[in-house]
Amino acid sequence: MYRSHNCGELRIEHVGQEVTLSGWMYANRDFGGMTFIDLRDRYGITQVVFNETEDKPLAEKASKLGREFVIQVVGKVRERSNKNPNRPTGEIEIEVKTLNILNQSKTPPFTIEDETDGGDDLRMKYRYLDLRRKPVQDNIIFRSKLSLEVRKYLNSQSFVEVETPFLIKSTPEGARDFVVPSRMNKGQFYALPQSPQTFKQILMVSGLDKYFQIVKCFRDEDLRADRQPEFTQIDCEMSFVTQEEILNTFEGLTKHLFKETLGLEMEDFPRMTYDEAMLRYGSDKPDVRFGMEFREINDLVKGQDFKVFDEAELVVGICCPGIADNYSNKDIKKLTEWMQRPQIGAKGLVYVKFGKDGSIKSSVGKFYDEEQLKKWGEHFGAKAGDMIFVLSGETDKTRKQLNELRLEMGRKMGLMKAGDFKPLWVVDFPLLEWDEESERFHAMHHPFTSPKKEDVERMLNGDHETMKALRADAYDLVINGVEIGGGSIRIHDRALQSRNFDLLGFTKEEAEAQFGFLLSAFEYGAPPHGGIAFGFDRLCSVMNNQNSIRDFIAFPKNNQGRDMMIDAPSPIDDEQLTELSIDVVKEEVV
Amino acid sequence: MYRSHNCGELRIEHVGQEVTLSGWMYANRDFGGMTFIDLRDRYGITQVVFNETEDKPLAEKASKLGREFVIQVVGKVRERSNKNPNRPTGEIEIEVKTLNILNQSKTPPFTIEDETDGGDDLRMKYRYLDLRRKPVQDNIIFRSKLSLEVRKYLNSQSFVEVETPFLIKSTPEGARDFVVPSRMNKGQFYALPQSPQTFKQILMVSGLDKYFQIVKCFRDEDLRADRQPEFTQIDCEMSFVTQEEILNTFEGLTKHLFKETLGLEMEDFPRMTYDEAMLRYGSDKPDVRFGMEFREINDLVKGQDFKVFDEAELVVGICCPGIADNYSNKDIKKLTEWMQRPQIGAKGLVYVKFGKDGSIKSSVGKFYDEEQLKKWGEHFGAKAGDMIFVLSGETDKTRKQLNELRLEMGRKMGLMKAGDFKPLWVVDFPLLEWDEESERFHAMHHPFTSPKKEDVERMLNGDHETMKALRADAYDLVINGVEIGGGSIRIHDRALQSRNFDLLGFTKEEAEAQFGFLLSAFEYGAPPHGGIAFGFDRLCSVMNNQNSIRDFIAFPKNNQGRDMMIDAPSPIDDEQLTELSIDVVKEEVV
Repeated sequence: MYRSHNCGELRIEHVGQEVTLSGWMYANRDFGGMTFIDLRDRYGITQVVFNETEDKPLAEKASKLGREFVIQVVGKVRERSNKNPNRPTGEIEIEVKTLNILNQSKTPPFTIEDETDGGDDLRMKYRYLDLRRKPVQDNIIFRSKLSLEVRKYLNSQSFVEVETPFLIKSTPEGARDFVVPSRMNKGQFYALPQSPQTFKQILMVSGLDKYFQIVKCFRDEDLRADRQPEFTQIDCEMSFVTQEEILNTFEGLTKHLFKETLGLEMEDFPRMTYDEAMLRYGSDKPDVRFGMEFREINDLVKGQDFKVFDEAELVVGICCPGIADNYSNKDIKKLTEWMQRPQIGAKGLVYVKFGKDGSIKSSVGKFYDEEQLKKWGEHFGAKAGDMIFVLSGETDKTRKQLNELRLEMGRKMGLMKAGDFKPLWVVDFPLLEWDEESERFHAMHHPFTSPKKEDVERMLNGDHETMKALRADAYDLVINGVEIGGGSIRIHDRALQSRNFDLLGFTKEEAEAQFGFLLSAFEYGAPPHGGIAFGFDRLCSVMNNQNSIRDFIAFPKNNQGRDMMIDAPSPIDDEQLTELSIDVVKEEVV
Repeated sequence: MYRSHNCGELRIEHVGQEVTLSGWMYANRDFGGMTFIDLRDRYGITQVVFNETEDKPLAEKASKLGREFVIQVVGKVRERSNKNPNRPTGEIEIEVKTLNILNQSKTPPFTIEDETDGGDDLRMKYRYLDLRRKPVQDNIIFRSKLSLEVRKYLNSQSFVEVETPFLIKSTPEGARDFVVPSRMNKGQFYALPQSPQTFKQILMVSGLDKYFQIVKCFRDEDLRADRQPEFTQIDCEMSFVTQEEILNTFEGLTKHLFKETLGLEMEDFPRMTYDEAMLRYGSDKPDVRFGMEFREINDLVKGQDFKVFDEAELVVGICCPGIADNYSNKDIKKLTEWMQRPQIGAKGLVYVKFGKDGSIKSSVGKFYDEEQLKKWGEHFGAKAGDMIFVLSGETDKTRKQLNELRLEMGRKMGLMKAGDFKPLWVVDFPLLEWDEESERFHAMHHPFTSPKKEDVERMLNGDHETMKALRADAYDLVINGVEIGGGSIRIHDRALQSRNFDLLGFTKEEAEAQFGFLLSAFEYGAPPHGGIAFGFDRLCSVMNNQNSIRDFIAFPKNNQGRDMMIDAPSPIDDEQLTELSIDVVKEEVV
């Protein structure tokens, strides 16, 4: 037996007991003939003491232990004279009689502390040491707890967890698939699922009624910040449901998770249509922890010889409370430059300052007199001390830019408070998105999403322009400006699904080759159904006020899709290639 | 709202309520101006009634509904005059006022009944219909419940569920990997994990202490009966543990699962060493639901001029109680032929019948007189009416053959009773297995398994013959002759692990290339650790007295690794191949 207790559980009531502990040498201090060691495991830290006067060889052995050595100690629990109130075990210590070195350790390449001196690459290469750090370990344990609560809740709601296959069929539509050559079927490939979408719909056709799965999904995308080639979804589908019932079920789940893991009671989630979200925030995932909503001021600004505004499709701004008097020209210049970076692409930034002293200053003071600017102020509800920023141009672009500005100001003004969770359902997304470049429609959610009931007729018989206006029973859950999940009511009718594939530019043959099994399934009594999927990694990070999903994944990959610890991917044997009937194409040297 | 209740929940106390139900048209009967329909969903079947005299058009519409149509009915719950005690809803029926056809159905290619007329191929192609059948749906729901209970139990024991990556590194050792070409790292490949073995050990090095995961694993093997290229494991690992603690933990888990899902209280599991299992049953996974244990009779049979026995390394038999008088010469001939098939390869089969009348008959009566045969009988504990079968030859082969015979007789004699669960721990497996053909050692469990403490010294310094005798802290859980899981205490010392790689024929370079990260990790304070993995598909099938895992997997593949429903694997676009820098090698036409 390696231990009688773990390093986090001994308390004052254990005093006098002989115990055995095992763990890592976290820190040691020599102090007046005594060696104190902090022994660490997942559960906590316990102080163990070696007394030179009692057992000199033992104390010497102890004083020579290196950081991260794995040791076992046997000894008596005693009350500490110098208690540590910040540590659950801080009232006691172990008076060691026996010390076993279970394993040695080289000096770690970075410190195993909450704040480490290790850079990202080093931490990833030695992930096994990084995972010893409490903040990372806490994240992984949080994730485990959260997944169990998801399962408990959904089970309590009669959901069945079903494992769908990982070796499926490649569907070129959408993101790129990872593919897997089949040895037994030469020249053929499996694909790893981007999501279990078609399978969960098939499960509804099969009468499973309520399905869920916490499941890995795969996308071979160029990895932008904080994307992973493999990620985890809470994937769900329900039969005989309306959008309303799905929203209520998953609002219930979300409340349960916040309550059970963070102890937070959440109020009912507000809902907002996609159109309204775009109008008020210029985003389909607004952060509603703070206001500074958009105000459109076309009516107030046109016809005053300010060409920029006169020619703009949209003139729109936000009002930032209380910053007018401490926002210098330099600040404004910096902000304008930030907005003009190619990532955002604003042409300029108009401001109006309403000083605490009643003064009004604006970058467009030449064109608009104080009376007019006051009217702007009224329209924005600006008070003395507030500052308005205005952008103008083509509607979609301008909204996008102003959304960036609003978020940036929210950050700067400290309005995105950690621990303040503001969920929002965004509903009634457009069904289709017209892509000017490829001159075709894309599915806004995915090709299985149903138009709203009242739009079905128009979808089946309408013209091209009509299609742009179709609305879907599609919804996103947004928390603090982060899209946690999204879903839709699905099409369950073969004819309507075929029409959707037509609109999305599939030939009949392509649709049949890729989704023939689903279209067939729809002919054998498919029930009305719909579902949702939550990004599980993202949910973990948002609930912990963190921006990156990486530290909620035990073994993440870097931006080149590499696992730095195991050094994958890597070349494989020629023999393996031969068995799989594939060849690697060598790059041509020009 | 599609339904106020599901099809399984209405009872006598709901009589008088107006309800809305949705489901599938399972069966209909026209009967004296009434149409009775059995409406089915996952939760049950409810009878709904249409009365011609009350609403003729409605009744006519109902009588025209086809099998598996999806319908919604609104009506009043009333007490049935003709109750069905076999159905939980059998006391009530719905007097329908409104009928909506939600979707139509073509006639299914096979009947949606407990016993269907669909063959395997048809069932797999239309798996969505097959999954509507109650026995298959029950299996899938059982699996979900079982997985939740696994998680609840292991969480209650402080295990953390950690998701390990699916895109890892190919290790040619062991079974064949499925590989995934990397687009971003040309000419390089990920592999899908055969198990999370190295990652779970890394998690122990990282101090997670207790890890588990219910996880998909992948093996590109030629699919023999009832193997799947993707399968699911309950994968676990613990730090600072001995074999004893692991066995107790997972015996606790197993008992919990049987209790919570089947309502069965299990007694403590017996344990048996590998050597003893081979001696008594000729198998490392004996079915101990019945006796008929092996008796070795070398001492009794040698030197009586029966050459076959005289030359044999081992003469061994079993005693089948009570069958002597009804086992005809024809039966014996058939059994002998069965044993002589190439799959088993016995040369012959010796029997001795102890008739109820005291007579003794034997196929080797020429060589052994009645007195001698009586002694055999005593040795076997044979009573009047029993029959002994004896095999001889090289020890390992003969044991294997007799194991097959014992199981066959167990089946024939009805001794493998469904619902009779007999678990067994088999412990102390050999560490290494000598392969005559390749003239090298294989790891009996896997290359990370630790020798028993008392064998470490011999392993580090012993000669070739010594290696064959090494015993490992390795164990299997066997239930009813099926290996449910296996595990071991792992090596946590770099030097010992290197020695093991040497013995297994890895060069230093190969070991470093494939497992360098693990060897490195062992240098930074790896704790003693060990673990186990259960085959989850197998556990499901054994707990339900079924031989095949296939119907506990929602979407299984066939023996060619194909998913018949979605028709995968399949060719992919040339564009995809180009992006991945791979080519398909065309078969040469000779």
